[in-house]
Amino acid sequence: MASDSEQTPMDLAVGIDIGGTNTAVGLVDRSGAVLATQSLPTRSYPDPGDFVRSVANVAKAMLKRMEQPATLVGMGIGAPNGNHYKGTVEYAPNLQWKGVVPLADLFQEQMDVPVYLDNDANAATTGERIYGAAQGMTDFIMITLGTGVGSGLVANGKMIRGHDGFAGELGHTIVMPEGRTCGCGRRGCLETYVSATGVKRTIVERLTETEDPSILRALQPARITSKDIYDAAQSGDRVAREAFLETGRILGLALANAVAYTSPEAIVIFGGLAKAGALLFDPTIEHFEANLLAVYKGKVRIIPSALPDFNAAILGASAMVWRRHPE
Amino acid sequence: MASDSEQTPMDLAVGIDIGGTNTAVGLVDRSGAVLATQSLPTRSYPDPGDFVRSVANVAKAMLKRMEQPATLVGMGIGAPNGNHYKGTVEYAPNLQWKGVVPLADLFQEQMDVPVYLDNDANAATTGERIYGAAQGMTDFIMITLGTGVGSGLVANGKMIRGHDGFAGELGHTIVMPEGRTCGCGRRGCLETYVSATGVKRTIVERLTETEDPSILRALQPARITSKDIYDAAQSGDRVAREAFLETGRILGLALANAVAYTSPEAIVIFGGLAKAGALLFDPTIEHFEANLLAVYKGKVRIIPSALPDFNAAILGASAMVWRRHPE
Repeated sequence: MASDSEQTPMDLAVGIDIGGTNTAVGLVDRSGAVLATQSLPTRSYPDPGDFVRSVANVAKAMLKRMEQPATLVGMGIGAPNGNHYKGTVEYAPNLQWKGVVPLADLFQEQMDVPVYLDNDANAATTGERIYGAAQGMTDFIMITLGTGVGSGLVANGKMIRGHDGFAGELGHTIVMPEGRTCGCGRRGCLETYVSATGVKRTIVERLTETEDPSILRALQPARITSKDIYDAAQSGDRVAREAFLETGRILGLALANAVAYTSPEAIVIFGGLAKAGALLFDPTIEHFEANLLAVYKGKVRIIPSALPDFNAAILGASAMVWRRHPE
Repeated sequence: MASDSEQTPMDLAVGIDIGGTNTAVGLVDRSGAVLATQSLPTRSYPDPGDFVRSVANVAKAMLKRMEQPATLVGMGIGAPNGNHYKGTVEYAPNLQWKGVVPLADLFQEQMDVPVYLDNDANAATTGERIYGAAQGMTDFIMITLGTGVGSGLVANGKMIRGHDGFAGELGHTIVMPEGRTCGCGRRGCLETYVSATGVKRTIVERLTETEDPSILRALQPARITSKDIYDAAQSGDRVAREAFLETGRILGLALANAVAYTSPEAIVIFGGLAKAGALLFDPTIEHFEANLLAVYKGKVRIIPSALPDFNAAILGASAMVWRRHPE
């Protein structure tokens, strides 16, 4: 019997996904199997030091409960407004910690392993590269269509971070000067149109400005969810279908322009809205190809994320560890 | 007397700038001094093999005429539609050679030194990095405002070439859907507005669509040059000044969006139109800052190229050699 191999400790990484509401902690092995997870309420920790100690204790307790002997290789953290260069979270509007928080250093003190921190979109991009749809790619773009629009750009095999660590904000490129107001204080940002929130705004505009019949009129406008719009479109509701067509038109053009920057092998679409499948992908790909410069036509794939819905952010965070510590 | 150092051969690179009309050949030393240049009419060589032999003979004759002993380190070529990965020129609309021409290999056979080829905008970008305004920068964007708009993106210290070698076509991002027709067959590309040709189109539109007085009305519309527009604006002509304001408005927004991709330390503006100085830079910088996402504001410089007008393309081509063969 393979008694020797049973005693060889397995390599594990801690992946941490810090969100405005919850922080998820997970143990992940090299194959991308999430062996344990636990969640903490981010808002219950107004002091970053308390937060770090609690998360570290959760991670240590999870490691202790592992039945197999394990070696902790490192910790990866995905956080809003995370700065990979400095290991800090800076002025994150959705977190209650003010100013610049040296989160990687604080965790390093508690965990005694290398700690890697990045903004959440970049962490997801690394996850896609290590475990997902972008394995083996040296040039690709990941775009997250969630409440907002996040993105990560990989070129020449490296994440583009820019001189200050804040590159890759495709959601805040202005696609409609004088267009919809954005949470960033400007107008016409891509994310005001093609995020889950953007699609809802498109629907509410249509319901308000037209008298087109729609089953969505039975709902309170403020309470309409992406799922409601998806279900309505699937059932043939014209207003809902047109909202997806309009989203695909704007997203397709934006992605065609993105190709003129980095000429990626593929664009990976991640996040809640990506689950709309053909309703979103078909018009997006149609307008993408129609707007591409000739030299790029037919060469760039638009593909859905291959990360599992559940635990995608934990996987992305842990992937930073495996990227730096290959087998 | 330093008789020893007088006998030490100096390192030289051949820089070649292939244009639709003329091909310029130059000898450049490590400091960026252009020691000799000669020009050949590109169109006189319908066969690429003949072209390569003639250019190589010109380069060899120039080397022989050098009074000081010299070591040829390599050859750099900037060409429209040049593919750095493959050393080819592919389907260049302004050259008469059809299909894919293996220009680097053809030169290698003649010269017996390493040959590097890139598209003209990337060659200018490398020139800016080695001799010009972007020295020491690992993250910057170069944009050329000439007949068209070219660009080169450097991130993480490397040129972004994309999976196929054709990245960096910012001039062909669509900034006005259904806007001006572009030579690429689409509509609304950035270069139809902010190139020298684009500014002329703006002027002709204004002269045609309004009755605003302008000294440019004395000229044949088809014959108006960038220089005429510049001179008119300098003399206070309102139509000409407004054309520069409009150009700066569109360019400023486009560059603010570009920052959201790669967060560069600086954007270097090169090419004929950049010589308009404050007339172009003032409105561009104003609209750039106004459209930047908060995290980037006040951090990204927009600066003119520091390459000498004369020989800039030869310098850019030769810079590829020094980048690969540092002292």
